[in-house]
Amino acid sequence: MATWTAVSPLAPAAFPSLGALQGVCLATAAAGIKYAGRTDVLLMTFDPGTTVAGVFTRSKCPSAPVEWCREALDNGTAAALLVNSGNANAFTGKTGRAATRESARMVAATLKCRQKDVFLASTGVIGEPLDAGKFEHVIDGLAGDAVTDGWEAAARAIMTTDTYPKGASRTVEIDGQTVTIQGIAKGAGMIQPDMATMLSFIATDAPIAAPVLQGVLSRTVGDTFNAITVDSDTSTSDTVLAFATGAAAGVAPIETLRDPRLRPFRAAFADLCLDLAHQIVRDGEGARKFVAVNVRGASTARSARRIAFAIANSPLVKTAIAGEDANWGRVVMAVGKAGEPADRDRLAIWFGDIRVAVRGERDPDYTEEVVSAVMKKPEIELTVDVGVGKAQSTVWTCDLTKDYVAINGDYRS
Amino acid sequence: MATWTAVSPLAPAAFPSLGALQGVCLATAAAGIKYAGRTDVLLMTFDPGTTVAGVFTRSKCPSAPVEWCREALDNGTAAALLVNSGNANAFTGKTGRAATRESARMVAATLKCRQKDVFLASTGVIGEPLDAGKFEHVIDGLAGDAVTDGWEAAARAIMTTDTYPKGASRTVEIDGQTVTIQGIAKGAGMIQPDMATMLSFIATDAPIAAPVLQGVLSRTVGDTFNAITVDSDTSTSDTVLAFATGAAAGVAPIETLRDPRLRPFRAAFADLCLDLAHQIVRDGEGARKFVAVNVRGASTARSARRIAFAIANSPLVKTAIAGEDANWGRVVMAVGKAGEPADRDRLAIWFGDIRVAVRGERDPDYTEEVVSAVMKKPEIELTVDVGVGKAQSTVWTCDLTKDYVAINGDYRS
Repeated sequence: MATWTAVSPLAPAAFPSLGALQGVCLATAAAGIKYAGRTDVLLMTFDPGTTVAGVFTRSKCPSAPVEWCREALDNGTAAALLVNSGNANAFTGKTGRAATRESARMVAATLKCRQKDVFLASTGVIGEPLDAGKFEHVIDGLAGDAVTDGWEAAARAIMTTDTYPKGASRTVEIDGQTVTIQGIAKGAGMIQPDMATMLSFIATDAPIAAPVLQGVLSRTVGDTFNAITVDSDTSTSDTVLAFATGAAAGVAPIETLRDPRLRPFRAAFADLCLDLAHQIVRDGEGARKFVAVNVRGASTARSARRIAFAIANSPLVKTAIAGEDANWGRVVMAVGKAGEPADRDRLAIWFGDIRVAVRGERDPDYTEEVVSAVMKKPEIELTVDVGVGKAQSTVWTCDLTKDYVAINGDYRS
Repeated sequence: MATWTAVSPLAPAAFPSLGALQGVCLATAAAGIKYAGRTDVLLMTFDPGTTVAGVFTRSKCPSAPVEWCREALDNGTAAALLVNSGNANAFTGKTGRAATRESARMVAATLKCRQKDVFLASTGVIGEPLDAGKFEHVIDGLAGDAVTDGWEAAARAIMTTDTYPKGASRTVEIDGQTVTIQGIAKGAGMIQPDMATMLSFIATDAPIAAPVLQGVLSRTVGDTFNAITVDSDTSTSDTVLAFATGAAAGVAPIETLRDPRLRPFRAAFADLCLDLAHQIVRDGEGARKFVAVNVRGASTARSARRIAFAIANSPLVKTAIAGEDANWGRVVMAVGKAGEPADRDRLAIWFGDIRVAVRGERDPDYTEEVVSAVMKKPEIELTVDVGVGKAQSTVWTCDLTKDYVAINGDYRS
């Protein structure tokens, strides 16, 4: 397979500063899952009392760790998270289920916790049996080495073809105290060679009951992680887990979604999720442009979202953006194919601030020169008013370049 | 814009032999629609009594000629078809509607027929006003020059970025007489630069009432033209029109869909449509592989079709095929993302005759060498049994190559 080592031109300037988060320790190791000598395992441990929430791929063919986590979530408590890269443990049948059980058993034995408090995620090749025995030699060391400031190393350990580690941190005041939310992510949206896709792990030291944390997470993913696409392909392994250690001093537990103290937390949590989601799109395979697609004037938000995804997933739109071509005809096409309510004769389209089409025709006032300048930028905002209502939605995507084909074509011959 | 003159490696060896079809005359001309000196207009004229049927894009933003044809179909009769390449007359508002009226008026005046018996199709750039005045200088000549054996020239006149003209012919016995069905098509599936996409015009000399012809056409497109995809993008202009001149001697009119004489006609008609549909996929932009995707074991035919399209439209599956990589993990992913009933643990996958996965795991018996030999062929059959029922569906697609990105990226800068 071709190797792609250049960092995405859309990457953030540096990994953000992620300090210690009370109640969380992290360690990484090289277990030789796929390649020898490559860091490929992450262990996160959580103080007693840590709550957990999760959302997972909607694939009908989910990976074994996804199924494990779905069941483990019933408890609402977490003691550890074990993640490996190099093997997705997906489409591995009974062997895969046995590997998850064995992994959890080993972690639980070492940490002296319940197996159902161990969460698992795997990312990498699909269809290869995962040898859980490879964890055996590293788990004791991981448990002993775990430190509070290992976030960047953790973000690196879960990378597969990512070109940079992804992390984000936010703070928010609750009860006059500062609580922290921080997380890491890997992936380039729904796309990656060998199906190794989106994972994100977020922790906070705020004391939040598991059902409340689940409520916050479930309502946040819709406009963040679920609002990004690189190429429309949905993974067997997509996993977002959130952990609340409750270790922040002087903060009373948040037990209900109606607690007014949750409002700033929610905003910060959503902001962090959007940050991580954008970092994933910015590492989209072969991406050279980061694109926001705004659809407004739709009949419902759901309809606006569908139209936005039809645009964001259209190969013709994405290749036009790669070619710095303000080809709004292809945007019309994508609106038309979405099958959602839209009034062709009231349609208006903007690239950046430049309106290129209005009332169902080319805008007579725009010139190719001004819109060309917009298209040359690395970040492009595309707005469509479909002229039938007041609902809106935004999704984020990247362009489709020859490098995408090269990376995924695997030209082995 | 880059020029792509090489004929697709998947093209048929030669244009098939399309002789005269009684009741149809054809002529082409260079009207200077987009480029000077390029043949860009086709006129087909039909003998009195010719019936017509049509199916069109389901886009919410259809082109002006599509709207014109939908209304004109009410009569069920046709005297002429005027087609231009170079301009799609789509997203052109009132100007576009005026251009269709003016075009039909000119043809009707020349041929002395009713305007509603004139059918129109346009293919090419979207959003550019179409100057119907350009037809004025060529219509008299076209009407005078029309000949019965102009089918290959007609197929060439409607090409945009097609790399070869597309045609097919079939004969069938009705009432002891031989009737002919033949047609032409243009396009590379749903994809083309500037949105100029799929058109097909089919004629027969069999005497078939318009509602019957419409019934045959409507039931045929599902498994032929609607079962192909190049990249999931649906045009504003897709049009298939069928004309029955009734000029074949000694054949009694077919007035009902229950007429038993229709059975062989239907089979031949469907075979011809599938032939033309396959020719479009074989000219898919940048295509190097022609791929049949069979899904079986599905709960319903509709479900099988959706899963097949999820596979056929997956950029990860298509790039793997371009790379001659039997990456069945990506097929599992595509089945999973379709959201249709499928039993992960009973899934089986074949490339050609080689079963690579069975019962939800890698097939232990296949070797990389045998499946590699399959992947190197220009035509690949991919079969998936999703393990929940007995329904099946087949769709056809091509691979996704760097040339696709280059052709559509338009790299103008």
